[in-house]
Amino acid sequence: MLNFGVDYYPEHWPEERWEIDAQLMAEANFNVVRLAEFAWSKMEPKEGIYDFEWLDRAIDILTSRDIRVILGTPTASPPPWLMAKQEDLFRVDQDGRRLTYGNRREYCPNNTLYHDLSRRIVLKMAEHYHDHPAVIGWQIDNEFGDRCYCDICRQAFQAWLRDRFGSLETLNLRWGTAFWSHMYSDWSEIPTPRRTGGSPNPGLALDFYRFASDSYVVYQKMQIKTLRDNCPNHFITHNLRGFHYPYVNYFDLAEDLDFVSWDIYWRTQWNMEAELDPSWPALGHDTMRGLKSKNYWVMEQQSGSGGWEMVSVSPRPGELRLWAYQSIAHGADAIVFFRWRTARYGTEEFWHGVLDHHGNLGRRYEEIQGMGAEIAEIGEIIHGSQIKTDVAFLLSYDSRFAFEIQGNNPRFSYPEHFHAFYRTFYNQQVLVDVVSPTSDLSQYKLVVAPALYIVTEEIAKNLEDFVRGGGMLVVTPRTGVKDEANTVVNQPLPGLLSEVFGIEVEEYVSLPIDLDNEIRFSIADFPMTSHPAEVWCDLLQLKGASVLAHYTQDYFAGKPAITLNEYGEGKAVYMGTMGKPMLFETVASWLLEKASIKPLWSVPKGVEVGERWEGDRRILFLLNHSETTQVVPVDGHYIDLLRESTPIEGSLMIPSRGVFILQER
Amino acid sequence: MLNFGVDYYPEHWPEERWEIDAQLMAEANFNVVRLAEFAWSKMEPKEGIYDFEWLDRAIDILTSRDIRVILGTPTASPPPWLMAKQEDLFRVDQDGRRLTYGNRREYCPNNTLYHDLSRRIVLKMAEHYHDHPAVIGWQIDNEFGDRCYCDICRQAFQAWLRDRFGSLETLNLRWGTAFWSHMYSDWSEIPTPRRTGGSPNPGLALDFYRFASDSYVVYQKMQIKTLRDNCPNHFITHNLRGFHYPYVNYFDLAEDLDFVSWDIYWRTQWNMEAELDPSWPALGHDTMRGLKSKNYWVMEQQSGSGGWEMVSVSPRPGELRLWAYQSIAHGADAIVFFRWRTARYGTEEFWHGVLDHHGNLGRRYEEIQGMGAEIAEIGEIIHGSQIKTDVAFLLSYDSRFAFEIQGNNPRFSYPEHFHAFYRTFYNQQVLVDVVSPTSDLSQYKLVVAPALYIVTEEIAKNLEDFVRGGGMLVVTPRTGVKDEANTVVNQPLPGLLSEVFGIEVEEYVSLPIDLDNEIRFSIADFPMTSHPAEVWCDLLQLKGASVLAHYTQDYFAGKPAITLNEYGEGKAVYMGTMGKPMLFETVASWLLEKASIKPLWSVPKGVEVGERWEGDRRILFLLNHSETTQVVPVDGHYIDLLRESTPIEGSLMIPSRGVFILQER
Amino acid sequence: MLNFGVDYYPEHWPEERWEIDAQLMAEANFNVVRLAEFAWSKMEPKEGIYDFEWLDRAIDILTSRDIRVILGTPTASPPPWLMAKQEDLFRVDQDGRRLTYGNRREYCPNNTLYHDLSRRIVLKMAEHYHDHPAVIGWQIDNEFGDRCYCDICRQAFQAWLRDRFGSLETLNLRWGTAFWSHMYSDWSEIPTPRRTGGSPNPGLALDFYRFASDSYVVYQKMQIKTLRDNCPNHFITHNLRGFHYPYVNYFDLAEDLDFVSWDIYWRTQWNMEAELDPSWPALGHDTMRGLKSKNYWVMEQQSGSGGWEMVSVSPRPGELRLWAYQSIAHGADAIVFFRWRTARYGTEEFWHGVLDHHGNLGRRYEEIQGMGAEIAEIGEIIHGSQIKTDVAFLLSYDSRFAFEIQGNNPRFSYPEHFHAFYRTFYNQQVLVDVVSPTSDLSQYKLVVAPALYIVTEEIAKNLEDFVRGGGMLVVTPRTGVKDEANTVVNQPLPGLLSEVFGIEVEEYVSLPIDLDNEIRFSIADFPMTSHPAEVWCDLLQLKGASVLAHYTQDYFAGKPAITLNEYGEGKAVYMGTMGKPMLFETVASWLLEKASIKPLWSVPKGVEVGERWEGDRRILFLLNHSETTQVVPVDGHYIDLLRESTPIEGSLMIPSRGVFILQER
Repeated sequence: MLNFGVDYYPEHWPEERWEIDAQLMAEANFNVVRLAEFAWSKMEPKEGIYDFEWLDRAIDILTSRDIRVILGTPTASPPPWLMAKQEDLFRVDQDGRRLTYGNRREYCPNNTLYHDLSRRIVLKMAEHYHDHPAVIGWQIDNEFGDRCYCDICRQAFQAWLRDRFGSLETLNLRWGTAFWSHMYSDWSEIPTPRRTGGSPNPGLALDFYRFASDSYVVYQKMQIKTLRDNCPNHFITHNLRGFHYPYVNYFDLAEDLDFVSWDIYWRTQWNMEAELDPSWPALGHDTMRGLKSKNYWVMEQQSGSGGWEMVSVSPRPGELRLWAYQSIAHGADAIVFFRWRTARYGTEEFWHGVLDHHGNLGRRYEEIQGMGAEIAEIGEIIHGSQIKTDVAFLLSYDSRFAFEIQGNNPRFSYPEHFHAFYRTFYNQQVLVDVVSPTSDLSQYKLVVAPALYIVTEEIAKNLEDFVRGGGMLVVTPRTGVKDEANTVVNQPLPGLLSEVFGIEVEEYVSLPIDLDNEIRFSIADFPMTSHPAEVWCDLLQLKGASVLAHYTQDYFAGKPAITLNEYGEGKAVYMGTMGKPMLFETVASWLLEKASIKPLWSVPKGVEVGERWEGDRRILFLLNHSETTQVVPVDGHYIDLLRESTPIEGSLMIPSRGVFILQER
Repeated sequence: MLNFGVDYYPEHWPEERWEIDAQLMAEANFNVVRLAEFAWSKMEPKEGIYDFEWLDRAIDILTSRDIRVILGTPTASPPPWLMAKQEDLFRVDQDGRRLTYGNRREYCPNNTLYHDLSRRIVLKMAEHYHDHPAVIGWQIDNEFGDRCYCDICRQAFQAWLRDRFGSLETLNLRWGTAFWSHMYSDWSEIPTPRRTGGSPNPGLALDFYRFASDSYVVYQKMQIKTLRDNCPNHFITHNLRGFHYPYVNYFDLAEDLDFVSWDIYWRTQWNMEAELDPSWPALGHDTMRGLKSKNYWVMEQQSGSGGWEMVSVSPRPGELRLWAYQSIAHGADAIVFFRWRTARYGTEEFWHGVLDHHGNLGRRYEEIQGMGAEIAEIGEIIHGSQIKTDVAFLLSYDSRFAFEIQGNNPRFSYPEHFHAFYRTFYNQQVLVDVVSPTSDLSQYKLVVAPALYIVTEEIAKNLEDFVRGGGMLVVTPRTGVKDEANTVVNQPLPGLLSEVFGIEVEEYVSLPIDLDNEIRFSIADFPMTSHPAEVWCDLLQLKGASVLAHYTQDYFAGKPAITLNEYGEGKAVYMGTMGKPMLFETVASWLLEKASIKPLWSVPKGVEVGERWEGDRRILFLLNHSETTQVVPVDGHYIDLLRESTPIEGSLMIPSRGVFILQER
Repeated sequence: MLNFGVDYYPEHWPEERWEIDAQLMAEANFNVVRLAEFAWSKMEPKEGIYDFEWLDRAIDILTSRDIRVILGTPTASPPPWLMAKQEDLFRVDQDGRRLTYGNRREYCPNNTLYHDLSRRIVLKMAEHYHDHPAVIGWQIDNEFGDRCYCDICRQAFQAWLRDRFGSLETLNLRWGTAFWSHMYSDWSEIPTPRRTGGSPNPGLALDFYRFASDSYVVYQKMQIKTLRDNCPNHFITHNLRGFHYPYVNYFDLAEDLDFVSWDIYWRTQWNMEAELDPSWPALGHDTMRGLKSKNYWVMEQQSGSGGWEMVSVSPRPGELRLWAYQSIAHGADAIVFFRWRTARYGTEEFWHGVLDHHGNLGRRYEEIQGMGAEIAEIGEIIHGSQIKTDVAFLLSYDSRFAFEIQGNNPRFSYPEHFHAFYRTFYNQQVLVDVVSPTSDLSQYKLVVAPALYIVTEEIAKNLEDFVRGGGMLVVTPRTGVKDEANTVVNQPLPGLLSEVFGIEVEEYVSLPIDLDNEIRFSIADFPMTSHPAEVWCDLLQLKGASVLAHYTQDYFAGKPAITLNEYGEGKAVYMGTMGKPMLFETVASWLLEKASIKPLWSVPKGVEVGERWEGDRRILFLLNHSETTQVVPVDGHYIDLLRESTPIEGSLMIPSRGVFILQER
């Protein structure tokens, strides 16, 4: 059964409404709800006084409609009585300002009192619900990640460093504290990188970002242990925030979870154009699937206008369903809409749910209800089916943190650059996994590592092995620049990867915002056109590689810009510059051809194709993101799962925002 | 006698100059000065040591020229010795930073020591001047309003809430603190909405803004009581800041005053275009008159370039006089110029007065002197005469505060939107009152309530009664959204006003910044053209109303956008969208016609018409704000008060920045 | 011997590398290095434990290559153990935030403990190196100037004020604290102008800026005394930051130094266009030379991309050499490149040196090495030769500080305006000195004082004497506005200078950003064209002067805008407005002609001409800053010093970024 449900806050509404809500949910074919997230005040109104009766009653009502329950641990939003106990329960921001009460996620993740009080409420919930038949699993806290710069965290950071480096001598050497006389003679001298400390030592800053990420991993472990000890039959997840979120190493955070879930909001801004590219959520999905290389849940799908102070663009007719099917096409085994009914109170009263404030049915409910009927029909066929790909993108949180500390060029953004390359594969209907640079790459034909800034010996060996074994590897500028301590390598770039790419970077040119260069391809495989070279130019010296493209302008005209190296059984392509989408598309097409990877389906622009496999059964998804009807040529024999298994041949008309799910005959 | 004078700071100048100043003032026909504002240091140089002798001498010199005196209580700028007594005398800003010495208005309005020391200096002044023949009244402090977020204010806020809600149960319910576990179990847990508390609960935030406003009302009451107890024959006012100022509920602040006075600065920025629309000061005047529904004073009129760090645009020849007459046309019974001579010292040394730093006479003095001669001639005729209107605009500080907390849409601004609608009436020479939503509306034919976001039952009843009794009411989007606690109403919008408008908002669409819709009028009364629909679209469901206009684009094309409902003896028009000035003008013209309201006079663009009544005597003001001479057709028989009662017939030539004051024969 | 060297940080690199570095330096013809700047941690790893052995070894290796040593005192970057001793060692910024560890220059310059610990390390170094044969001099600290707003500084400021004013009565009078009741009754009440104190009293703010500047002068004096007492044979300098740097009065700071040195970075931003104007570094050089009216050092010349978080534009081929020769042409007797090898660690790891991170030779090393060979050949001829000029620009730090406090107009910037006028002389190949308004002007024919806002009686007399004696003086708007206490003068502008210019400012108009005026010249000397008048218009009243140009628009059309006054033997030109470069060029050409000053050489655009004199020997520099080859007509007989004394006649072809150094035969 594919999970289809909604996030529900019965505590926001009069109890007499609950029965109506449950009935309407059942009529929408919802089979799961998430409850109790943010309900700490209701479950422990005063310290040590617990009240689960209201929640029991809510669950009973839902159970009577065959709706199963996921419980959120409520620790993302502590009650006032708790935060009033000690000032140092509050986080301190990078400016050194201690937060005050009134929002959520204001707690310091290293505060031991907060750990204790969190453990206690989680334990009480676990004890109360461990054998409740309707409860199937847990979501821990909510969207972990905000960094704390308080003194408790500073001390915890110092301890974390002691564990990592063993001695101050090692730390001083690895961070290079001889620079500007920062040689620490006592662990207690080490600061956190507050803004009042200026532009920090890059090694210190990266380790602080790692530590801050680890703080949540550790805090989550504490909750997981409490739950596993008491509820061995329940799954445990956390709701992550997709590809965009930069504060936590999600590979680490996902490790202890049974599966990943995430919160997806297409439209929370006030600009239509900025948000309409469906390759962005696609990248989010592929990243979330890649964290554990398995299917995942959408724990919150936008179901109305978002916004706190402002009301964002409303989802248009058909979009809620289209987005949900895109999630499924990328490997989601659950769609949970956020939220049931728009809250009349509180910071998020303009974060619209399936129902509006007044609780009457409307356009959005009807669309979701229609999809619910479909899911009831075909969910079983899809649930658990797998995605198979030949292409992996390497996502490095170390590199991402390091680029956050030193952006290298004002026009460069690691996530934007990563997406720009990813999009070319998305647009060519080639499925992609997003995985860690240390993961097993043997199943892939092609690996793309955009701006893999930090390269450890382990990563270097992993990439070498991949290429030597016949894989094709491509990287972009600023790869191999830094070691694990975020110091620049002591050899020509790309450092540890020079040999596999057969080049050295002779000189690099960070382009000003008002000056581009140009490259031209030099071999017959490529269209002989030129492309703008933007942001960065590595001038390459050949050490065995051959030239694919060279620069045409300025004092380095003629220097190699893109090279190809045959290494072992494989190939390694070094892109020494960045550019427009057309450049990435040209290179990607060539890579796909060389790696013998074929698109899933040839479709008009605006149509996305997805594919899941259940054993030998192949399920295809056709999603029309465009504003007009698209005609898709059909090459093969399929049945249309959404339309009573009608056979499909010849061609398909897909209306705007329409969806087809086909099974190969 | 119409009051005509200047703000004077003799303490900034050598005493030997005072006699010259007084003579020059007399020659300018000034009959009133404001003194002692900001002179605390001079009147109480050390704690408990008072010195009024210098002020007595200054007053004597002025009295000898028949100039009367208004005294400012000096509490807006405490002396160094006072603020050095305790750190918590200083305000704390929204970022939690305590102010330091060096400016003005740095005091916490809830600090009891500050109350005590303020009461003492006011009392000493009152005792000294209560029977001084030259002193006619008092201005309290200066431009009240900056919010304080200190711990003293936090405790005062908690006490204020206890008074308001009685119990925490009620508060938790009304604010909806179940959201994000904010359920308060002790009054002391309630925070102020500091920025470090994130995006606050809207109910908490609105109540804090009300409390902050009340803090100044209470502080003012303390001073008023001290003065009334001692100076029963003196008037008491405060200098407010017009329509723009958003921090204080001016209806509340005005209640205890004998009359309102305000400070008007046309040009304090560095951009000509931004500030030339005379409908802005007109709105300021109508708002200030509306606070107590009576005539008011201009206590500070710009008389030179403004600016602290920067020197703003200088008033052009004729502007000082034009602005002063515009004030009078809107109901001012006093014009007091700010300030006499430009200070050579201090933060405001570029806030230019009538005289420049050097004290010699110049262009601005001469212009004001000329006007002084006119006022000496005709002031008696104008003083005290009244303004009569058929149209009221409802100004809601609750809504304004709530919009400050949640802007709803990035393109929406409550004051800008309010002004946009107001301007259409201004441009059509229809006089307008700006009054509170709870005021008696029975005297009006047409009431406009732009974005009346917060609608209490009292307000709803007031509006219903108005329409039922035959009035015409028009509202714009985001009306009736919130209840008094700033929570969204529990029914379809416009909530309590659904019945009077005969509609329900089926769905609303907050438009992105890069997308507009369009409406088209559907009845023959309107020109059949289309108008852009901007910012917001309410999709209306008819519950008795008829359609005036509908949307033409996107998925809601065809849905009603503007409706008309016959209700009781009256009419209620719901505008579900916003747009360009032309849209408001089209609607306003139609409303005026339906409500049988006629413009005062048909004049060319750029000419403003004012009207005051003294019993049956009608005085008309013609003000040419444009850069060129305008010809105004004259329909009727008038005498020209400014030009020795010359009869006027046929037509009038008004030069650029020229003024005519006509009395109907 | 012209000094040619590099800034070197051996402590960043393994000791086995030092020998290679020294050899490569010698091969580049380097004859000097700067060492030990920022090496406090290495020299005093724990309090009171000193280690100079590593530095001795590094110096020995350099000495063996005939490279001399300048030692930096390391006080710009204290070690962690030091700053951990007391929290108040850290500076407090204008927002009142205390800095935290992690950067450099975080110390409070008035902290006595910091003075003590600084004196001790300087003393230890001085004792250790006072008779070392390789050490020739000292650089104190690094780039002094950041202001501190802590309580220690506040008290020091109060003491500084007591010294300056003697009594609070005088201070209150001079600052005009009667304004807003700021009359201080105790020295301890006086604040520093923190941002939390709002827009401060201008007198207080200016005195605080002077005090903050003096704080570094005093701190430097302490170090200088320690060094002079112990190392009488060594020179002492400090590395300043050129014309741009606004925080310290560099005339004061330079006074105690043997000579000025400075750090010059052409390209540290990410915008080509913004930084390519070579008149900016030229102004920097002329200012640095003017501080002591003698030759100076370039202690840090950019030698690669700059940048902390971002990598800036890389110097193009030929630029490093071109920039170095420009420095020499303006009076530098030393070029020291920053830095030897790009650090792999720390905040400045993207601030590139002569070598890249990996330490291999490259393009930049080769260019510098080539120049080194030239310098070895011709350095002796140039070293010590002097620059002679007829034109002085007056740079007033008092005015600059005062404009920082009150900008007067949003489009006005003192340094931009200063540069705009300076550039017209630069472009006409007229050499300029930049000197203090109180310096002896008798050697000049023409003195330009852009926006000389603060004019003391001493300055007024200096200028009067200059004009009376036959000099030509020109000023621009906002001259003579303020007295020494930063209060507006008590007479018509330009205050004390009214008589010498024979005018009074009748009225001034600060132009809005969207409105210009226009002027037209009225005498036959000038092309009869009109020029836009921007930013500011002084309307001039003639008191003896004659009109050169008048306004043509708005209500002051016809009023004088630029005037000429014959005064004594000289001439005084008052420019009452600002404008485009063409306006300044027109006026400058006229001034040069009237003052009988001739350009050095007539050259095409993009070519700069320099000139140094050694006795009667005249050395000319031709620098082609443009992107193309330029042909320069040669009028006279020269030998080409860079090309084996080849005779030069007729004309010269200078390639892009090419340099010729000619000696007149």
